[in-house]
Amino acid sequence: MKGAVLYGPGDVRFEERADPTIIEPTDAILRLSASCVCGSDLWPYRGIGTSPDPQPMGHEYVGIVEEVGREVRNIKPGQFVVGSFWASDNTCAICHAGYQSRCVDARPMGALGAQAPFLRVPLADGTLVATPELPSDDLIPSLLAASDVLGTGWFAADAAAVAPGKTVAVVGDGAVGLLGVFSAKQMGAERIIAMSRHESRQKLALEFGATDIVTERGDEGVARIKDMTDGLGAHSVIEAVGTQESMMQAIRATRPGGHVGFVGVTHGVELPGLELFFSTVHLHGGPAPVRRYLPALIDLIWNRKINPGKVFDLTLPLEQVAEGYRAMDERRAIKTLLRT
Amino acid sequence: MKGAVLYGPGDVRFEERADPTIIEPTDAILRLSASCVCGSDLWPYRGIGTSPDPQPMGHEYVGIVEEVGREVRNIKPGQFVVGSFWASDNTCAICHAGYQSRCVDARPMGALGAQAPFLRVPLADGTLVATPELPSDDLIPSLLAASDVLGTGWFAADAAAVAPGKTVAVVGDGAVGLLGVFSAKQMGAERIIAMSRHESRQKLALEFGATDIVTERGDEGVARIKDMTDGLGAHSVIEAVGTQESMMQAIRATRPGGHVGFVGVTHGVELPGLELFFSTVHLHGGPAPVRRYLPALIDLIWNRKINPGKVFDLTLPLEQVAEGYRAMDERRAIKTLLRT
Repeated sequence: MKGAVLYGPGDVRFEERADPTIIEPTDAILRLSASCVCGSDLWPYRGIGTSPDPQPMGHEYVGIVEEVGREVRNIKPGQFVVGSFWASDNTCAICHAGYQSRCVDARPMGALGAQAPFLRVPLADGTLVATPELPSDDLIPSLLAASDVLGTGWFAADAAAVAPGKTVAVVGDGAVGLLGVFSAKQMGAERIIAMSRHESRQKLALEFGATDIVTERGDEGVARIKDMTDGLGAHSVIEAVGTQESMMQAIRATRPGGHVGFVGVTHGVELPGLELFFSTVHLHGGPAPVRRYLPALIDLIWNRKINPGKVFDLTLPLEQVAEGYRAMDERRAIKTLLRT
Repeated sequence: MKGAVLYGPGDVRFEERADPTIIEPTDAILRLSASCVCGSDLWPYRGIGTSPDPQPMGHEYVGIVEEVGREVRNIKPGQFVVGSFWASDNTCAICHAGYQSRCVDARPMGALGAQAPFLRVPLADGTLVATPELPSDDLIPSLLAASDVLGTGWFAADAAAVAPGKTVAVVGDGAVGLLGVFSAKQMGAERIIAMSRHESRQKLALEFGATDIVTERGDEGVARIKDMTDGLGAHSVIEAVGTQESMMQAIRATRPGGHVGFVGVTHGVELPGLELFFSTVHLHGGPAPVRRYLPALIDLIWNRKINPGKVFDLTLPLEQVAEGYRAMDERRAIKTLLRT
């Protein structure tokens, strides 16, 4: 098969890779219906944490089960399935507590390269969730979104303790931030302030449920949020960038006793302990345990209650994956869906 | 009157200070029954953040109301009252959310010097809680403990989401850490691991409800906690020191999805963002909103359900305040009560 491989900064190639096969008896092989490019793929694409060796790319996926290992009990060939970007057994104490991304046997799907026509998924019974039947084509973008970007936005909102009546601020207008807005709306937030200075993203934020747009950043952005909340700050702040500035913006925009849900990968960030202490905010985040939310999210999508697939504003055939990265890197696209 | 004044590192003097008077109409003047020395008083005593000017000391207090300002409605002369180390209006949105230490009008009691026979308490109606009647003498240590050290340990356990069935680790065997153990026991924790290498503190920890003692610190301490918890870490960790090592010990000893409640003042601490991200712990702490817990804690003490006053292992007349500091600084005493 041919799939995406990152050779170095800015250098994604669509090239021959070995067809995946069952390695462990708990594996499944999927024939992918779609995959996509994640904001976190842009870190190595931009040279941050880039592997010196060629690296298969992609960790968001939906598709049809082609084959299962001999110990797979619940997932069956022919099913349409959605999985998370961490494979997990879903049986250990950490999974039972809802932290499948930190399963005692967690496996990063990124290493397996989902920007390809076929994918091996370890721990198939724990990782994959099947839809009731084969979905119609128009549901595929939303089901694919559940695999990471929606699940991550949902976790961020949950970690930020979003609830009816609350004021929520969202730092970051990438796909995850926008789905943080979307999730906050679904969870009943009263006011949702999207922090964005890009018109196309502001538009989607408003469509997803934002009630206000703030274009200022850093301390000016914090001052605007305080102005809008009686000087107190938001109850809940979603952080979906991962830089020093965005983390401090999120913490400072949160009222005392409020909650910060952070899902931007915090490369090079150092949090000043004394400021965090006196802020009295709750801080929670990390790699989203998407598997926790998959059954509920698939149900909402299946019954056409939500349409998060709108976040994909560029659809390309898989062989044009390099253009998919370029478009996101240059912020011409919010998120690229790859049809396999 | 004569009270404690810090002149510089190691130099606490018992000397003449002006008698406090009503300044704002919401003030009350208390005749103190007892005060004490806090672990946080040891920071400036040891030269960290010491004021260049002579500084009245003390922020933990119980006593009888002597006089109230003309706008005080609920607190009356003659009542015995307990207050927190932050004065708060208890009417703003932040107070209503339970974060009185961050009240929009919060006033630090430390600046007013409670190691003295009389004390001015601002925002008396919001800050002070009266006991049903004048307490008998033996209740005074426990009521005094509620003013900070118990309230802070209780908040730490609450912030660490302690609950029945959970395994709790406590980093720090000072008075707050010991009352973190005590609070975790009251909240029904199944297993409470006190991290301590001092025999007298281990003894009190066991008396307060610890089920296990771990003497190792840092990464070795973390390894011991993991050994004791199927390799996962504790559900809840209370941090009651405030150094870089103790914060990292707390975060690393917590299982994925678990909770760290931190109440040690984090002087000079920098938290590595990426490690915090992948830890997926919940982090919450800061100056404890003791006022939130005062009614319930006073009730438990009044009805002799709990006896946190045991934490005071040295009682001195106020004029010997300097010895009270020395004994705690040299770890000869866990906590010093000052009789006024």
